[in-house]
Amino acid sequence: MANYNPGPANTTGAAVVPTPLLKDELDIVIPTIRNLDFLEMWRPFLQPYHLIIVQDGDPSKTIKVPPGFDYELYNRNDINKILGPRASCISFKDSACRCFGYMVSKKKYIFTIDDDCFVANDPTGKPINALEQHIKNLLCPSTPFFFNTLYEPYREGADFVRGYPFSLREGVPTAVSHGLWLNIPDYDAPTQLVKPLERNTRYVDAILTIPKGTLFPMCGMNLAFDRDLIGPAMYFGLMGDGQPIGRYDDMWAGWCCKVITDHLGLGIKTGLPYIYHSKASNPFVNLRKEYKGIFWQEDIIPFFQNVVLPKECTTVQKCYIELSKQVKEKLSKVDPYFDKLADAMVTWIEAWDDLNPQKPAAK
Amino acid sequence: MANYNPGPANTTGAAVVPTPLLKDELDIVIPTIRNLDFLEMWRPFLQPYHLIIVQDGDPSKTIKVPPGFDYELYNRNDINKILGPRASCISFKDSACRCFGYMVSKKKYIFTIDDDCFVANDPTGKPINALEQHIKNLLCPSTPFFFNTLYEPYREGADFVRGYPFSLREGVPTAVSHGLWLNIPDYDAPTQLVKPLERNTRYVDAILTIPKGTLFPMCGMNLAFDRDLIGPAMYFGLMGDGQPIGRYDDMWAGWCCKVITDHLGLGIKTGLPYIYHSKASNPFVNLRKEYKGIFWQEDIIPFFQNVVLPKECTTVQKCYIELSKQVKEKLSKVDPYFDKLADAMVTWIEAWDDLNPQKPAAK
Repeated sequence: MANYNPGPANTTGAAVVPTPLLKDELDIVIPTIRNLDFLEMWRPFLQPYHLIIVQDGDPSKTIKVPPGFDYELYNRNDINKILGPRASCISFKDSACRCFGYMVSKKKYIFTIDDDCFVANDPTGKPINALEQHIKNLLCPSTPFFFNTLYEPYREGADFVRGYPFSLREGVPTAVSHGLWLNIPDYDAPTQLVKPLERNTRYVDAILTIPKGTLFPMCGMNLAFDRDLIGPAMYFGLMGDGQPIGRYDDMWAGWCCKVITDHLGLGIKTGLPYIYHSKASNPFVNLRKEYKGIFWQEDIIPFFQNVVLPKECTTVQKCYIELSKQVKEKLSKVDPYFDKLADAMVTWIEAWDDLNPQKPAAK
Repeated sequence: MANYNPGPANTTGAAVVPTPLLKDELDIVIPTIRNLDFLEMWRPFLQPYHLIIVQDGDPSKTIKVPPGFDYELYNRNDINKILGPRASCISFKDSACRCFGYMVSKKKYIFTIDDDCFVANDPTGKPINALEQHIKNLLCPSTPFFFNTLYEPYREGADFVRGYPFSLREGVPTAVSHGLWLNIPDYDAPTQLVKPLERNTRYVDAILTIPKGTLFPMCGMNLAFDRDLIGPAMYFGLMGDGQPIGRYDDMWAGWCCKVITDHLGLGIKTGLPYIYHSKASNPFVNLRKEYKGIFWQEDIIPFFQNVVLPKECTTVQKCYIELSKQVKEKLSKVDPYFDKLADAMVTWIEAWDDLNPQKPAAK
């Protein structure tokens, strides 16, 4: 098992899927500072979809997108123009800027992927269509209230095992699909420093719902979600330029999303699909970005483990505003940064609602 | 992946492990009504260990054990003689009788396996030494407070991912290792009836800790645990002869163990190892045994989800006695059976303490 070739796959000449799932209901969001050559390998799977590219760093630089892809691209000038003073909530010089793409999308589903992620092979050598698996995950219910020992009960060849309560077998809507990574694992700087050569070669053929009440480290590298169900909570925080911290953008979003999905009775899945993560980032640079987070996290996690959202919080927006208040009240004493972050959370929701006016209720 | 031969493996001539792990600290408990020919296949892995065979049904019948195995065997007459009136807490004509073996063992670890479980092959075709994997699971910490997306962080080639709090990386002691089954999945009677031909061919190469606060369906077919840490909670209840219910013995033990390990800060792992489960039990017979459980479960699960054990409960015995009180108070209204079960839980602890007197504290 451990010795198969996990990728990157050769997808040249692979047949384009005839009727791609949710073609007109999904945007692919890619944050980048470089030409998007990595898309060549993804062409068979991603070309039918619309891309939203969020260009980080110098806006005067031109990002080349391989021909044939349908895309819109936003650089910092665009973000400032569209959001005005509220642009302050969108991070700069950090991949956290990607959440701007979530905000300007008009689609129901988002898939976001980093530009150093390639197509992985499954153990039979077949290239993995990551997006297709994410869509399957999102369209299939979650089971956060009870653990199923044979993992995803809705997969072919699996089911709920003996002892699983029948009243819980319908499941709940899935808001987030969290995919994994072969080759370079998503380690923090200390682990990267200690294990520079470790590679993930273990293909675990499982999908599972993160149980209610359990937090997890959500990675933004290979992630999909339902904007209608959880979009306004997918804020990647204040990171990078001018901020004391980096590399906690997706973690922050994950913790916020988890307590809100738990409160609203929604599910988060993790496991398949795998992508092939090609490039380890520099552990020294990472350590500088992360080190405050490593300390702060020891307060942040108990905070999120104890968050209680009141019954009145019936929408993601209401939950998120309430969460921002609790962040201000309880985490500002850890560092003034959280005071600023709590304000940015409110700004984010204002900007979201501006760009995404409530649809009138269907008659 | 799905098409490899999952077993049963050919273990004839397989080399006996030179120094079996925990050889003198582990007993293998097998409940049975028939000759134990299935042990032939397990010989390379299990022969070095001591067996405790609990003979169910007619005590005058002779159970044949393959030569070379070291064992003690208890039939119903033995159980009655050893426990006297307290023998009433041990089920008859149901594999729940196996828990008598847990009680008479003097070892720290127990592995229990059904006599229709054979050696499975891993995807490379290698026979799986299930016991060795269980021992590895039990000797390795658990991580119930936060989910690790790359599964077992202590396995070779894996670790805690970015965002996993450093203060939680030591883990907690593992009390239970729950293994899975290839071929015949452990389904309830309704699912067996609906999917008579479904076979589990998916080998998921994962071990994970069931998060704190999450219940799971614990199956007794392929299970190991640490008697010192959780033994007195491994009571398989009142099932079978003279009882209104069957096939909930391991489930009951699992729910009790889970709330107690959560309270005491211990862990439960599930996943590897797989065994090859050869024989589907009769779904019609199963339905008769299960049907009350299917209703009752809808009350039992919320009960266990809401159990709070007071701080004073600092040992498994104290937790279990407290749990028996809450069962009597809250579940007796579901059915008088639970009143009887609550009494049996107390009897079980009395019998356990009788056979397992407290060791004096080391000086």
